[in-house]
Amino acid sequence: MKTLEIAVIPGDGIGKEVVPEALRVLDAIADIHEGLKFNYTHYPWSSEYYVEHGTMMPENGLELIKGSNAIFLGAVGDPNLVPDHVSLGGLLLRIRREFEQVINVRPAKQLRGMVSPLSNPKNFDILIVRENSEGEYSSSGGRVHNGIDEIVVQNAVFTKRGVSRVMEYGFEIAGKRNGHLTSATKSNGIAHSMPFWDEVFNELSAGYPDIKTRSEHIDALSAFFITRPETLDVVVASNLFGDILSDLGAAIMGSIGIAPAANVNLNGKYPSMFEPVHGSAPDIYGKGIANPIGQIWTAKMMLDHLGEPEMGAIVLEAIERTLEANIKTGDIGGSSTTSEVTDAIIAAMKEQI
Amino acid sequence: MKTLEIAVIPGDGIGKEVVPEALRVLDAIADIHEGLKFNYTHYPWSSEYYVEHGTMMPENGLELIKGSNAIFLGAVGDPNLVPDHVSLGGLLLRIRREFEQVINVRPAKQLRGMVSPLSNPKNFDILIVRENSEGEYSSSGGRVHNGIDEIVVQNAVFTKRGVSRVMEYGFEIAGKRNGHLTSATKSNGIAHSMPFWDEVFNELSAGYPDIKTRSEHIDALSAFFITRPETLDVVVASNLFGDILSDLGAAIMGSIGIAPAANVNLNGKYPSMFEPVHGSAPDIYGKGIANPIGQIWTAKMMLDHLGEPEMGAIVLEAIERTLEANIKTGDIGGSSTTSEVTDAIIAAMKEQI
Ligand SMILES: CC(C)[C@H](C(=O)O)[C@@H](O)C(=O)O
Ligand SMILES: CC(C)[C@H](C(=O)O)[C@@H](O)C(=O)O
Repeated sequence: MKTLEIAVIPGDGIGKEVVPEALRVLDAIADIHEGLKFNYTHYPWSSEYYVEHGTMMPENGLELIKGSNAIFLGAVGDPNLVPDHVSLGGLLLRIRREFEQVINVRPAKQLRGMVSPLSNPKNFDILIVRENSEGEYSSSGGRVHNGIDEIVVQNAVFTKRGVSRVMEYGFEIAGKRNGHLTSATKSNGIAHSMPFWDEVFNELSAGYPDIKTRSEHIDALSAFFITRPETLDVVVASNLFGDILSDLGAAIMGSIGIAPAANVNLNGKYPSMFEPVHGSAPDIYGKGIANPIGQIWTAKMMLDHLGEPEMGAIVLEAIERTLEANIKTGDIGGSSTTSEVTDAIIAAMKEQI
Repeated sequence: MKTLEIAVIPGDGIGKEVVPEALRVLDAIADIHEGLKFNYTHYPWSSEYYVEHGTMMPENGLELIKGSNAIFLGAVGDPNLVPDHVSLGGLLLRIRREFEQVINVRPAKQLRGMVSPLSNPKNFDILIVRENSEGEYSSSGGRVHNGIDEIVVQNAVFTKRGVSRVMEYGFEIAGKRNGHLTSATKSNGIAHSMPFWDEVFNELSAGYPDIKTRSEHIDALSAFFITRPETLDVVVASNLFGDILSDLGAAIMGSIGIAPAANVNLNGKYPSMFEPVHGSAPDIYGKGIANPIGQIWTAKMMLDHLGEPEMGAIVLEAIERTLEANIKTGDIGGSSTTSEVTDAIIAAMKEQI
C-alpha cells in the first residue's frame, strides 16, 4: 500500500469550496487504484485565521507540513479582512519561498468541450514554466521622504542560480514536448535584470542544440498568446511575467477557473505545493457556483508528480468528458453547481475502468 | 497661417516605410485645411546611425528638436546592429525621459472593418494611460559576483509626483469618457511599489467622487482584456504594466500594426512625441507590406494634440472606411501594399470634404 500524506490548506473564499470537491476526486482515485491511499491533514490557515491569531499560520506551521508528500492548497486572500500583501506574504508566498518551490508549472491548453474566447484558438497548447522564488517578487526595497516628495524603491533580484535553474527546467521539459522554448524578456526596456536574463538564456541554449529557442519581449509575447498561440510550446518566464502569462493562458482556455498549477521543489528537501491559478474570489464565495475544475486539474498535476500519471490521465479525461457533456459552472456558460460538476467528473472517472 | 514644426525621426526598419506614408496623410490634411502647414525636419537617428557614429543621435540632438511643436517617430531597434537596450535607451527612452513625456496614451478599440481575434469583442474601447518616465524602466541597479554566484539587482523607482500625475491624468480623461477608471496593480505580490501605487490611487479617488474606480491585479486584468473588455474604460498603469496592456489591447483590436500612441509632455517645456505601439519589425522591412495604419492613427493623435481634432477625426474616419472597403495589409488579412492602403486613406479623407 502506497500511503501519501497530503497537507490540505483550503485557505480563503472559494478555496474552501473547491478543495473538498477535489478531495472527493482523490478519494475516487483511491477507490480505483487499490494500492493507493491518501492521508489528509487539514490546516485552517487563512485570512480568518489571521483575524483570530494575528498570523497566517502558527509559528511552527512550516514544521507541521514539512514532512508531507505534497501540499494541496486552495486560494489565499481576502482583502476585506487582511491586506493581500500580508495574507499572501504570510502563507502562499512564504511556503513557496521557504520550501524552495522554485518553479511554477502552468499548462494552458484547449480542452475538449471548452469554448475559447478566441474565434480561432488553433492548437493552443502552451506550458508556462515560471520562476517562483525571486525576481520581481522581492521584499527588498523601501521608502524615502514623505508627502509629495515620497519615493519608493522596489528591488527585483535575479540570481544566476535561480535563472539557470528555471531555464534548464524549461529546456528539459521542452525536450519532452515539441522541442521549442520561448523566453519572455523585456531587455529593450529594463536595463539590468532582463539583459542578464537574455545572457543566461543564450548561454544555456548552447547546451541544448536540439531545442529551438526564441526570445520575445513580454509585451509582444502577450499579444502572441492571442494572435499566434500555435507558434508557442514551452515558455520560460520570470516570476512576474510568468504570473501574467499564465492568467492570459487561462483566459484563452476559456476561464481562469479551470487553470491548474504546481509549485515544484527540485531539491527534495521539502514538499511541492499544488494550487490552482485562480484566486479566492470572495465575491462568489458561498454560493456553490465556483468552478471546481482548476482545483481538480491541480489534483491531477499532484498525482503526476507523486508518480501516478495513469491516475492523473484518468482525471483529465474525465474533466474533458464532463465539459463535452456540457456539465459546467456559470463562468464557462453552464448552470451546474460546484458539486454537480464534481459528481459528473467522478462518474466519468469510473466509466474509464 | 498656422505652421507646425515637426521633427521627424523614422528610426529603424519599417519605421522608415510607414513614416513617409503618414507624412503623405499630413500633407493631404494641409491640402484640406488651408490655414494649416507642416514644416518637417528629418533626422536619420537610428541603429544605422549608431553603427556609423557610435551614438544614437548627435550630442546636440535634443537641442535640435527641442523647439519643434511635436516629434513624429517611427520605430527604434535593430538587434542585429545594436543591442536593444542601447538603441532604445539612447533614442526613444532618452527622449521620453529628457523631454519629460511623463504620460503615454494608448487607445485600443474595435475599429469598423477590423476583425478581432476575439469571437465576441463586445464594446471593446479602452484607453490605456501609461506612466512613461519611471517605475520599472529605471537604469538603477547592477551586478555582484560572477559565474554561478552572479546576482543582479534591478531597481524600480516610483515617486509620489510621478504616480499622482499619471493617475490624475487618468481621472481627468475618464471624466471625459465613461467615468470609469481601473488601476493596474500587483500589490498582492510586489511588496513595496504596488502597495504604494494603491495608496496613491485610493487617496486621489476621494477627489473624484464622480469617477467609478476599480483596482485589478495585472494578471487578472490581462485576462479581463480578453474575457470582459466591455467592463473597462480608462486603465491607468505603471510603465511596464502599461506596456504589456497596450500590446494586449492592440492584439485584440486585430493587429499591433494599427495601434497608435502619444508620449505626452505636460509642463509645456518640451514637445510631445507621437509613435505607434509597434516596433521596427526588421523581418518584414523593405517589402512594402508594413501596415501604415498605426503610424497614420498616431498622426491623428498628433493632430488632436496640436489643436486640430476635426482634422484628426477625418483621418480616423478615413482609416475606418478603408478597412471597411477591405483595403488591408497582410497582417490583417488583406493583400494591399503599404502605399495602397495610404492611397485609399487619403482618398477617403478627400471624400469627406
Ligand atoms: C521598445 C520598448 C522600449 C518600448 C517600451 O517598452 O516602452 C515599446 O515596447 C513601447 O511600448 O513603446
Ligand atoms: C496571489 C498572488 C500573489 C499569486 C502570484 O502572483 O504569484 C497569484 O496571482 C498566482 O499566480 O499564484
